[in-house]
Amino acid sequence: MVVAKVVGSDLQLVSRHKQRVRLAAGLDSELNLSHAAMERGLECLVMFAERLQGFEASNVRIAATHTLRRASNAHLFIQRAKDVLPFPIEIIPGEEEARLIYLGVAHTQVESNSKLVVDIGGGSTEMIIGQEFEPELLNSKQMGCVSFTEQFFNNGKLSRKNFSKAILAAEQSMESIANKYRKKGWDIALGSSGTIKAIREVLIGLGHEDGLITNKRLGKLIDTLCEFESIDDIELVGLTDERKPVFAAGVAILSAIFHSLKINQMFFSDGALREGLLYEMEERFARSDIRMRTTENLAKQHRVDIEHAARVKGHAREMLCNVRSELGIKKKSELFDLLEWAALLHEVGLSISLRGFHRHSFYILLHSNLPGFNREQQLVLATLARFQRKSLKLNEFPEFNLYKESDIINLIKVLRLAIVVNGQRNDDPLPELTLSIQEDKWVLTCVEEDWLENNKLLDADLQEEQQRWESAGWELSF
Amino acid sequence: MVVAKVVGSDLQLVSRHKQRVRLAAGLDSELNLSHAAMERGLECLVMFAERLQGFEASNVRIAATHTLRRASNAHLFIQRAKDVLPFPIEIIPGEEEARLIYLGVAHTQVESNSKLVVDIGGGSTEMIIGQEFEPELLNSKQMGCVSFTEQFFNNGKLSRKNFSKAILAAEQSMESIANKYRKKGWDIALGSSGTIKAIREVLIGLGHEDGLITNKRLGKLIDTLCEFESIDDIELVGLTDERKPVFAAGVAILSAIFHSLKINQMFFSDGALREGLLYEMEERFARSDIRMRTTENLAKQHRVDIEHAARVKGHAREMLCNVRSELGIKKKSELFDLLEWAALLHEVGLSISLRGFHRHSFYILLHSNLPGFNREQQLVLATLARFQRKSLKLNEFPEFNLYKESDIINLIKVLRLAIVVNGQRNDDPLPELTLSIQEDKWVLTCVEEDWLENNKLLDADLQEEQQRWESAGWELSF
Repeated sequence: MVVAKVVGSDLQLVSRHKQRVRLAAGLDSELNLSHAAMERGLECLVMFAERLQGFEASNVRIAATHTLRRASNAHLFIQRAKDVLPFPIEIIPGEEEARLIYLGVAHTQVESNSKLVVDIGGGSTEMIIGQEFEPELLNSKQMGCVSFTEQFFNNGKLSRKNFSKAILAAEQSMESIANKYRKKGWDIALGSSGTIKAIREVLIGLGHEDGLITNKRLGKLIDTLCEFESIDDIELVGLTDERKPVFAAGVAILSAIFHSLKINQMFFSDGALREGLLYEMEERFARSDIRMRTTENLAKQHRVDIEHAARVKGHAREMLCNVRSELGIKKKSELFDLLEWAALLHEVGLSISLRGFHRHSFYILLHSNLPGFNREQQLVLATLARFQRKSLKLNEFPEFNLYKESDIINLIKVLRLAIVVNGQRNDDPLPELTLSIQEDKWVLTCVEEDWLENNKLLDADLQEEQQRWESAGWELSF
Repeated sequence: MVVAKVVGSDLQLVSRHKQRVRLAAGLDSELNLSHAAMERGLECLVMFAERLQGFEASNVRIAATHTLRRASNAHLFIQRAKDVLPFPIEIIPGEEEARLIYLGVAHTQVESNSKLVVDIGGGSTEMIIGQEFEPELLNSKQMGCVSFTEQFFNNGKLSRKNFSKAILAAEQSMESIANKYRKKGWDIALGSSGTIKAIREVLIGLGHEDGLITNKRLGKLIDTLCEFESIDDIELVGLTDERKPVFAAGVAILSAIFHSLKINQMFFSDGALREGLLYEMEERFARSDIRMRTTENLAKQHRVDIEHAARVKGHAREMLCNVRSELGIKKKSELFDLLEWAALLHEVGLSISLRGFHRHSFYILLHSNLPGFNREQQLVLATLARFQRKSLKLNEFPEFNLYKESDIINLIKVLRLAIVVNGQRNDDPLPELTLSIQEDKWVLTCVEEDWLENNKLLDADLQEEQQRWESAGWELSF
């Protein structure tokens, strides 16, 4: 946990709290998170909750990474966390973690040249190349100091063989991206995370006062480690007891990264994921939202008909304003943003094909890298796209943890209506429409009484839509 | 059925055989094709089979369209057809049908200006705008004279109300594309298919000797039809008894199309789908294959790393050549083409995201419009992409009708090996590799004996691949 306050146009760190929970060690072979690991995690959250008393929800962001991304029972943990912590936990995709790490490093380093950033976590390792505040290549690979300890050092032996296996496995994992990274190149390599910090401390303890990490020093460090019989025996100045069990695996991974990417030297950087989250929160208030840019880029990539999407977005926004208070949605609720982004992106699936394109949109929105979105927000966009048209197969409706199902359903209703009224896809202005809710029945009215007389096609479309609502147990009149 | 022979650089039609089977009427609400309808279809195939005796397989193409696209038991029909007809039946996607119709019309018309082509079938209607031999907009909509007769004229009444309903439904179906077509525009509108031919004949019968179809004449034709009490009572010069039951629905659909697209006048064109198939067969022999262009376009759209794809393609081709005869694959087999196209396209899914990209490639290849490919060829490409890497979950292997499962499995093996040996994605030349098969075991050998000594990463990758083969019950050694 990192707490910071805004001072002028910058952030001042107020406090850092670190607690090692080793969630990753609690994943079994079927990717279920053990009860014990959950308890450790919840205990930690209880402690943090105390320190967060009095914080407004908009000032807190909690991100879950690798282990909760993988755990098939992650939703149980998130559910139970709700009882002890009054703030939502967002599971963020690996690429999003990489982006935020880069952002955290970029903000804490004065260096503005191109940077390679490496962050070795418990279950995943993020590697990013970027320029100033812009990540240009980013990846998250499933290798980490906790998981590699279990895979390659679970006999506790510090043998050459164990190191070789671990290094080779890490190199295999990097194989598909290494060439691209080497081609791209960088001016300075920076490492964040506890693993890299520990390596730096140990190198200093071994007499390298500059704490610089080089290929040669890593090689020697492995030699030194192999002199100890087992992990428990390691005695190195600068290495904490807590870090000791996973240190060798961390050194193996970093050594493989040095080799694969042909890194000469690496500096340690203090900032990482948490700082990235903080700086981005601040940016969201202060400047433009990265998610708007993500939306625009994705729309462009899939050649969305922007004019049509903008018309749908305009109507959707207006209609949600009409019924906002009946639905108990605040004026500045994030639901407005989600609706607008979904409106801009609902037709991305047309890039695959017209037939069933709402399903293609769902697929693309669910699986694309969407910088700035956490997993569940991504699922919201995908779900709005999925249910934008055709019959309402609500048995396919996914589960949400951070959002209320009823809110998402309401956004779907609004989006569908905005799409139906723009069915003719041209810029002939529509008469002024108003949406209202009368005892659960949604009512679409128009200032011009005979609006549907003059537009039989819209009338037929609305009738068809009405039938679909009816089949879903919803009510619509117009 | 159309038979033609190549005369010089052109095709000369030899014979046409038409048999009305009304497959579409045999689809029940659960999209099962009835036994009776299957029997009608098979009977027709038996007759055609007689006339096709002595034809080489490469000189015959059989395309199934709307009803078999929709029927959930289509595979049963295709299976049974194998017993009576020694040629494969390809189910072609709607967009592919549209493209071939356009091609057929474009080749039969001397007109080289931009064309709108409309083809109203039993269950689907295709609409295409193109220039010379290039379709530029194409769509297939689920409305046809058989299905609309059932939906809107099933009481047999020729009332204004039935016509209005049918026209409105057709306009709704066109709504999403009408504006785009109108904006694009065309110089000449051409209609193919029995429905439009029948309308032309009836108009001639009514005294319009030029046989030109106009909005006004269609309106009057509907008036005329409404004077008859029921469909059975229709008496019009030029209308055959066979066409009579579905004529009114056809007129309604065409009338809606005239209205939606604001067509002034339409000419009848003799050529359509079958001529398109013929001309394309001829082109495949003579000139470049449209499918190569499709592959290149899709690779471009998804920004595939072409250099890497080309390396994989090269190795895949070579390796298949190595083992071709053991596998009983002919030198000029289409399997070579499918393997090469799959090699070029196996990474399209990276445009969505790196994680699990083989599944994204599968999704994109399965759902995209791929001009020139029939459904099953599309499934072959998608399946090769799906099984290109990672563990071999063969329980997810789809069913094939036109291709042998063992052939597809062999292509997967070859493609995987070509990908593994190119794992490092750079242009360092690989030593010369040879693939062979020894009693079901696939063996990869190299002229340089120590090739794996010098490349530990490739060695590790091949070992991992070997384990995956083993889990699938396959054998690999190197």
